[in-house]
Amino acid sequence: MRKKYKVAIVGSSGLVGRTVLKILEEKNFLNITYTLFSSKNSAGKKINFLGEDYIFCELNENSFDSSFDYAIFCAGGEVSKKYVPIATKKGCIVIDNSSTFRMDPNVPLVVPEVNPNEIFKNKGIIANPNCSTIQAVLPLKPLDDQYHIKRIVYSTYQAVSGAGRFGIEDLEKKSYGDTLKKFPYPIYNNCLPHIDVFTEDGYTKEEHKMIDETRKILNKPNLPITSTAVRVPVINCHSESINIEFEKDFDLYDVRLLLQNFPGIIVADNLEKNLYPIASKVNGNDEVFVGRIRRDFSIPYGLNLWVVSDNLRKGAATNAIQILEKLIKNS
Amino acid sequence: MRKKYKVAIVGSSGLVGRTVLKILEEKNFLNITYTLFSSKNSAGKKINFLGEDYIFCELNENSFDSSFDYAIFCAGGEVSKKYVPIATKKGCIVIDNSSTFRMDPNVPLVVPEVNPNEIFKNKGIIANPNCSTIQAVLPLKPLDDQYHIKRIVYSTYQAVSGAGRFGIEDLEKKSYGDTLKKFPYPIYNNCLPHIDVFTEDGYTKEEHKMIDETRKILNKPNLPITSTAVRVPVINCHSESINIEFEKDFDLYDVRLLLQNFPGIIVADNLEKNLYPIASKVNGNDEVFVGRIRRDFSIPYGLNLWVVSDNLRKGAATNAIQILEKLIKNS
Repeated sequence: MRKKYKVAIVGSSGLVGRTVLKILEEKNFLNITYTLFSSKNSAGKKINFLGEDYIFCELNENSFDSSFDYAIFCAGGEVSKKYVPIATKKGCIVIDNSSTFRMDPNVPLVVPEVNPNEIFKNKGIIANPNCSTIQAVLPLKPLDDQYHIKRIVYSTYQAVSGAGRFGIEDLEKKSYGDTLKKFPYPIYNNCLPHIDVFTEDGYTKEEHKMIDETRKILNKPNLPITSTAVRVPVINCHSESINIEFEKDFDLYDVRLLLQNFPGIIVADNLEKNLYPIASKVNGNDEVFVGRIRRDFSIPYGLNLWVVSDNLRKGAATNAIQILEKLIKNS
Repeated sequence: MRKKYKVAIVGSSGLVGRTVLKILEEKNFLNITYTLFSSKNSAGKKINFLGEDYIFCELNENSFDSSFDYAIFCAGGEVSKKYVPIATKKGCIVIDNSSTFRMDPNVPLVVPEVNPNEIFKNKGIIANPNCSTIQAVLPLKPLDDQYHIKRIVYSTYQAVSGAGRFGIEDLEKKSYGDTLKKFPYPIYNNCLPHIDVFTEDGYTKEEHKMIDETRKILNKPNLPITSTAVRVPVINCHSESINIEFEKDFDLYDVRLLLQNFPGIIVADNLEKNLYPIASKVNGNDEVFVGRIRRDFSIPYGLNLWVVSDNLRKGAATNAIQILEKLIKNS
């Protein structure tokens, strides 16, 4: 483990990028050196990282020489589309946070607790799933293994941090009319059933991502899923109402045990003590919190779950860094 | 129509009560005189209503003499339990906003657009349904008549005004810890999957209300329904993600027409123009707004709807006054 690795963080000045840096400081890997790339806007600015002064470097077509082992991209789809192929051509393995490569059959889409072995099938790119998908598939995986999921109905309650810094500003400044920076309507005092763009069938891209990515990660390409994705006036941490139909019967006690014993999940479910997951308590944690575990009596083998996770951490930065760790451990 | 009616408003100083008064002013019925009852706290206080000074009267066991034709009760379950029987004994017909009598087989549970004829089967009490149920059954009714509903999955996004004045204060003052007046956790910056109390099967009473009342109003006592009821940091207007399975196939165009032509519904669904129902636009209206009308591709005959309504108006006060109007018109 004395080998040294050189890792690029692309988009390191953005909301997810900053969370990546924060978690890298917490982890404090001794055998990695970092280069922080940013857009023109932030380039040249100093940042204290790991107790030292780092300078954001502008990303350009010559940024990637053959010295980089790994890169985490969190600068959005356009940057990934252009620069990920440049990086991989130079032998750099990329963990990409954008949706660009997620559904490419040659690109593994990985949640390390769920499908870790996919990581090593990479051909240069590993895709980090959508935040709302990551927190859903963690509880779904052990339940699918045991009871075989037949159908899922998702309804989400997604925080504004998922829309970046301008999303947070719209909520905090109670933006209205012309002052709105991110959303088509005020998110303050509203729930907006509109995340990412609308597609021809009436679904948003966010809803399609949840459907497609869940299928790919669970390796059930035809799993029936529907989804309604909603932005709510909460700064950070997505919540999800997940309704699941299974092929086999289950015992609620066993469901709790399966969830409790699965890595990365914390079961927060004690109604006598008003214990269930909520954003303010989950904020800053790396686990996916599951509560309100109860039977759906409207079908033979139905289950309802309430799932909350920090969308900037486990939904983005933490998941990417877990992938990086696995790559390094197995290199 | 020259007959004069005497109507009591019980709980007229509360959040729903004030909304009742506001709508009565808008309607300005010429043939009704009102008596405003309140709790001890507000009794004796003056209020300007219909251009005149009214005084809140304290409700007591002798308040109801035989002069009252109708009463609207919106003072909560305890008051209804005690005083509704006293009022009906004196020949007063009561429209009750509490949950006390809703599931009583002798009490009609009425949404005037959905099951108006039930009103005239009353034996002294007509129950006003739960706010989250009222806005759901409006779009469900014409679709059930045409395509026969097989199953419903509800996930709600409910405003704090549904929890009364203290609910609004908790959100507006960003209450925390000991300063919380209504909710077990801060509602500011949180979604709380906890409305009303928990029951033994892991559901909240609010979730049971939605299930039971939907069945009663649609007159389908065994309709399979599941529900997750969530409080969100929005002052007023509930939103709902409704997933419906039908027995028969449908055409989306026909679904829109059926909804559009049903009284009390406004279809707000034009994705090219980012048109879908949101709380800030629905606030102050009496209709139920329906959008995001799209197929659920995970089952043969599935439909997703996004439904928003003003929970203080159509979800409570407006619905009660519509019942009153029908009673008077047919008296």
